[in-house]
Amino acid sequence: MIIVMKQGATDTQIANVCARVEQLGCQVHLSEGQERSIVGIIGDVRSLDRAQLERLEGVERTVPILRPYKLTSRDFQPQDTVVSINGIAVGDTQLVVMAGPCSVESQEQLLDAARAVKSAGAHILRGGAFKPRTSPYSFQGLGEEGLRLLAEARRETDLPVVTEVMAPEQVPLVTTYADVLQVGARNMQNFALLHAVGEAQRPVLLKRGMMATIEELLMAAEYVLSHGNERVILCERGIRTFEKYTRNTVDISAVAVLKQLTHLPVVVDPSHGTGKWELVEPISRAAVAAGADGLLIEVHPSPETALCDGAQSLKPDRFRQMMAGLRPVAQAVGRTL
Amino acid sequence: MIIVMKQGATDTQIANVCARVEQLGCQVHLSEGQERSIVGIIGDVRSLDRAQLERLEGVERTVPILRPYKLTSRDFQPQDTVVSINGIAVGDTQLVVMAGPCSVESQEQLLDAARAVKSAGAHILRGGAFKPRTSPYSFQGLGEEGLRLLAEARRETDLPVVTEVMAPEQVPLVTTYADVLQVGARNMQNFALLHAVGEAQRPVLLKRGMMATIEELLMAAEYVLSHGNERVILCERGIRTFEKYTRNTVDISAVAVLKQLTHLPVVVDPSHGTGKWELVEPISRAAVAAGADGLLIEVHPSPETALCDGAQSLKPDRFRQMMAGLRPVAQAVGRTL
Amino acid sequence: MIIVMKQGATDTQIANVCARVEQLGCQVHLSEGQERSIVGIIGDVRSLDRAQLERLEGVERTVPILRPYKLTSRDFQPQDTVVSINGIAVGDTQLVVMAGPCSVESQEQLLDAARAVKSAGAHILRGGAFKPRTSPYSFQGLGEEGLRLLAEARRETDLPVVTEVMAPEQVPLVTTYADVLQVGARNMQNFALLHAVGEAQRPVLLKRGMMATIEELLMAAEYVLSHGNERVILCERGIRTFEKYTRNTVDISAVAVLKQLTHLPVVVDPSHGTGKWELVEPISRAAVAAGADGLLIEVHPSPETALCDGAQSLKPDRFRQMMAGLRPVAQAVGRTL
Amino acid sequence: MIIVMKQGATDTQIANVCARVEQLGCQVHLSEGQERSIVGIIGDVRSLDRAQLERLEGVERTVPILRPYKLTSRDFQPQDTVVSINGIAVGDTQLVVMAGPCSVESQEQLLDAARAVKSAGAHILRGGAFKPRTSPYSFQGLGEEGLRLLAEARRETDLPVVTEVMAPEQVPLVTTYADVLQVGARNMQNFALLHAVGEAQRPVLLKRGMMATIEELLMAAEYVLSHGNERVILCERGIRTFEKYTRNTVDISAVAVLKQLTHLPVVVDPSHGTGKWELVEPISRAAVAAGADGLLIEVHPSPETALCDGAQSLKPDRFRQMMAGLRPVAQAVGRTL
Repeated sequence: MIIVMKQGATDTQIANVCARVEQLGCQVHLSEGQERSIVGIIGDVRSLDRAQLERLEGVERTVPILRPYKLTSRDFQPQDTVVSINGIAVGDTQLVVMAGPCSVESQEQLLDAARAVKSAGAHILRGGAFKPRTSPYSFQGLGEEGLRLLAEARRETDLPVVTEVMAPEQVPLVTTYADVLQVGARNMQNFALLHAVGEAQRPVLLKRGMMATIEELLMAAEYVLSHGNERVILCERGIRTFEKYTRNTVDISAVAVLKQLTHLPVVVDPSHGTGKWELVEPISRAAVAAGADGLLIEVHPSPETALCDGAQSLKPDRFRQMMAGLRPVAQAVGRTL
Repeated sequence: MIIVMKQGATDTQIANVCARVEQLGCQVHLSEGQERSIVGIIGDVRSLDRAQLERLEGVERTVPILRPYKLTSRDFQPQDTVVSINGIAVGDTQLVVMAGPCSVESQEQLLDAARAVKSAGAHILRGGAFKPRTSPYSFQGLGEEGLRLLAEARRETDLPVVTEVMAPEQVPLVTTYADVLQVGARNMQNFALLHAVGEAQRPVLLKRGMMATIEELLMAAEYVLSHGNERVILCERGIRTFEKYTRNTVDISAVAVLKQLTHLPVVVDPSHGTGKWELVEPISRAAVAAGADGLLIEVHPSPETALCDGAQSLKPDRFRQMMAGLRPVAQAVGRTL
Repeated sequence: MIIVMKQGATDTQIANVCARVEQLGCQVHLSEGQERSIVGIIGDVRSLDRAQLERLEGVERTVPILRPYKLTSRDFQPQDTVVSINGIAVGDTQLVVMAGPCSVESQEQLLDAARAVKSAGAHILRGGAFKPRTSPYSFQGLGEEGLRLLAEARRETDLPVVTEVMAPEQVPLVTTYADVLQVGARNMQNFALLHAVGEAQRPVLLKRGMMATIEELLMAAEYVLSHGNERVILCERGIRTFEKYTRNTVDISAVAVLKQLTHLPVVVDPSHGTGKWELVEPISRAAVAAGADGLLIEVHPSPETALCDGAQSLKPDRFRQMMAGLRPVAQAVGRTL
Repeated sequence: MIIVMKQGATDTQIANVCARVEQLGCQVHLSEGQERSIVGIIGDVRSLDRAQLERLEGVERTVPILRPYKLTSRDFQPQDTVVSINGIAVGDTQLVVMAGPCSVESQEQLLDAARAVKSAGAHILRGGAFKPRTSPYSFQGLGEEGLRLLAEARRETDLPVVTEVMAPEQVPLVTTYADVLQVGARNMQNFALLHAVGEAQRPVLLKRGMMATIEELLMAAEYVLSHGNERVILCERGIRTFEKYTRNTVDISAVAVLKQLTHLPVVVDPSHGTGKWELVEPISRAAVAAGADGLLIEVHPSPETALCDGAQSLKPDRFRQMMAGLRPVAQAVGRTL
């Protein structure tokens, strides 16, 4: 970290800042410019509180030099992490497609969807049993009954299951049924939940909050890793911007950036990211072209009666077409599907 | 809700949409324009899923007409809700100031802060025992020990206490010690938590998420009210924008908008909203001038050693000055302080 | 357009609104719901001022139904527009790559860049003679001398030239030298300039403003088309969001959306969009995979001495590699390069 | 500026960076941390191109230390600039209110508005003759005829006139009629226009772009000042965010920030900032409470027939009430009105 002093900061103020830094166990490197002095801090500053130092007299601002995350960083671990889910490797050459309905509605709906996505080539079944809904009056999911149906669909199709967990106390229950624990975008900074899934014995699919920076996503992953769970898959699912034609703005650059900054696998959710089924195919292609390790796709046998997110769900036929169209793109960038 | 059909939608498609709407228990009102037909839906549509209707053939988009919240709406309850906290009325003519340190650090720090804010005219003591921190390596709060210190400060100063609750399972514990349960910005759409505080016997201070719309804030409040707790205070604390000079952008207009749309009291947190102590005073004045019912202010006896958010904390002297400067502004808009 | 009346609007207010609409030459279609009445307007409302109608007593808000653009719309012209630039077709199966330095700095620099991009397979040479710079103290471009060098590079390499025009009075001068007139992102709503290029005899490359919605980009294009120039190429170049790791956030979805909404060709500028040369290649691939008709790439023989935007410029070797890697992606989505 | 080297940057890379900096005429101050080395640059770096330095081998990023603006900075000129407009001082204790219709529509409309705002206590008449409109099909203003009507209204009421200029070639014409040249939000980075008004003999009202940072606003002002015109008034008029209930989000903090960073006067436009007349009064109060030097308010004798922006225009009676309500707020913060 460096501390930028105000123009006209006095020698006493500078000396006080240096003394404070040394008191905190770090070394100081002072540089006096023509207009401003700069105090460099040498040592491990990840636990220092910047806000505290910014309150010292004569300080204009602080600038972090090191990245605040460590375990998730490629500096810390250069080689790619490959997360294995019942034998399916996420983060390897093979792209991994997780597909299924937004929410589990019934046995028939789920089994239809599961069989359809399996036959089209998907690797993992997705489906929500606990649903975060903006309105208390909307369908909130089937709860444990939904988890049971997911487990049944797994037995039937052999597809591993990913489903969302919304609160720390749900973790044991969901772990009983699911192969991957999903932390939703609205819970990306639910630190109690991150702590809980960090102690769980399941891979975690961590979705980027629609208000979260890339760095904050990596810090959320750091919570999970620092509590002992290294099997984290990151998911870009669109950020909130001023543009309202799409539900969110998929940040495709984030895929390439994340692949540089971290060793964790990165997947993209074009269904939530765009909110429109017509855009799922082009954005899926773009995600793969940009280097994503997989996709999360909403597929529903009958979107026009879906209890949630019908507008962004593909019908099985369309999903099959999409998978066919994706294969040459995957090959063009050295991946398989 | 209205359904806008695509240009060139066929009569069959329009008939199917109408049939579907009627099947869902609503009435239809069809309007044929020169370029597009519009299907109006008559009936209570708050539980209808728009995304589902958008997937019907020939539909371009849906447009909601009614607001999705009900219990929080001024249409539903025209007169202001006044939330009473141990005899202190929030939402009445008197402005209410909640002040104290970002986090509880020690008995001495908290008591110093509590006495200082009380003597300067604050009405409620704020302080965090459970702290949501971006980094797992930052100070996470004293937990229950912090709650005990808050209760002690209340005994000493007679100030009611507001503190954050971060997970549903913490609600019983925090309720034992605190007079107001704070739901933080990052948890505004933690629906499990909203459910839990909705069933608690304490007023709730609900902070707007930094990427949440005004409507989403009202829907979050609707969760709490619909679970039986009508004592909700809304808090504007800055939204995330492209501007980075301030930590967030305080949306002062939201104060005036919320006072129009809802009967619930509205307070502003200029400390988190700006991230800079020098801006706390002007933004406090602006908030009061715009019609806020109160303020949430960080005050720390020694911000330059604060374990969190020192840069935005006022020293006690400065807080006293701020309160003095606020009084004439309050009077100018017909309030007392 | 529909007009949503307030809850409790009186019969007189509704009648006044209907009368006003009819006075403006449109027909009225009234629909009375349980909680609100809706006044539908039938007729060509593109020239009606919504803000005016929103001021009538009892009106809550207006909702536009028709899109505000016409000439640029696919409803108006279903088949793709192909813009021909000295025999190079933009908007056809063949992808078109426009490459070159951010700014023209010298004869040697430009010729080196021009030869390099030509030999790597680029179709059009880009380079700025008039440069919009945030700081008045930054290099502002060579002006007419830069235009002369561009013309010389065209003679030498046979590549058509695209360059920015910053003010209406520069249009005649730039038209003398350039094959395509570029309107920069900061000028997307410089309506005087849009008017001027609308009357020019050159194709226009219109960059999306970093603050502009997709609809506003189409309205800017509508300005150009409505002044007689139908040869407009749209360019997505990143929007401004809260995420600061990349300079802007490239809105890849916008490519697919624009291809649905308009018949005009769409290209992407990953250099400005990301601000980092390492991201140019993955975002170029993503853009092509999502359906872009071409790319705008900054290439500089020596980025570390470039007078502008060195951080996002590719060296010639890297550009050559990028082109090689793009070809299979283009083929995978049915395009050639 | 400091240059942060990558982790593992070699000694040769560091030496090359230092050599390059010295070659550019600056001095180097090297600091070697545990994980990263930092190269401090000493000297006037305002004209250095950061992007160029970021392309040197081994460089991770650059961090600016000095602010990029100089003439507009309070460091450069500590005392407030007071801009005098025909004897009316902007930036002094007295608040200045500029009011009038969005666009000049007719002699009668303008004179009615001018008399009304004068009698309610406004100091300057605003009104648009050249109108930037999103749609080419909307009313574009009366042009020179509008300027003539403004001059007539000035003769009649003695109010100085502020009106927008949209292109460099309009500057001489507008200067003939107007007392203040307004640069609109969409033209804040129209550098040719900034250059032109920088050479004009009139005060400039510079509106913040809806996607412009505070720093970019100050850099735009720097363009005007650096071309010789020091009479610049800055105007906050709302920024574009994800929140859509208001047209823009008024950044009230920016008022207080600007008053710290620059000596130039700062006014606020709550009419464009909110897009809703009901919000003009509370936001005007908030702006004054936060330290604004004045306001820009849309007033129209008959908003429901206004050719532009009726929804945000006050009727004369309401404007009079607003002025009355503002006076005690002004006094509460030590200003007069």
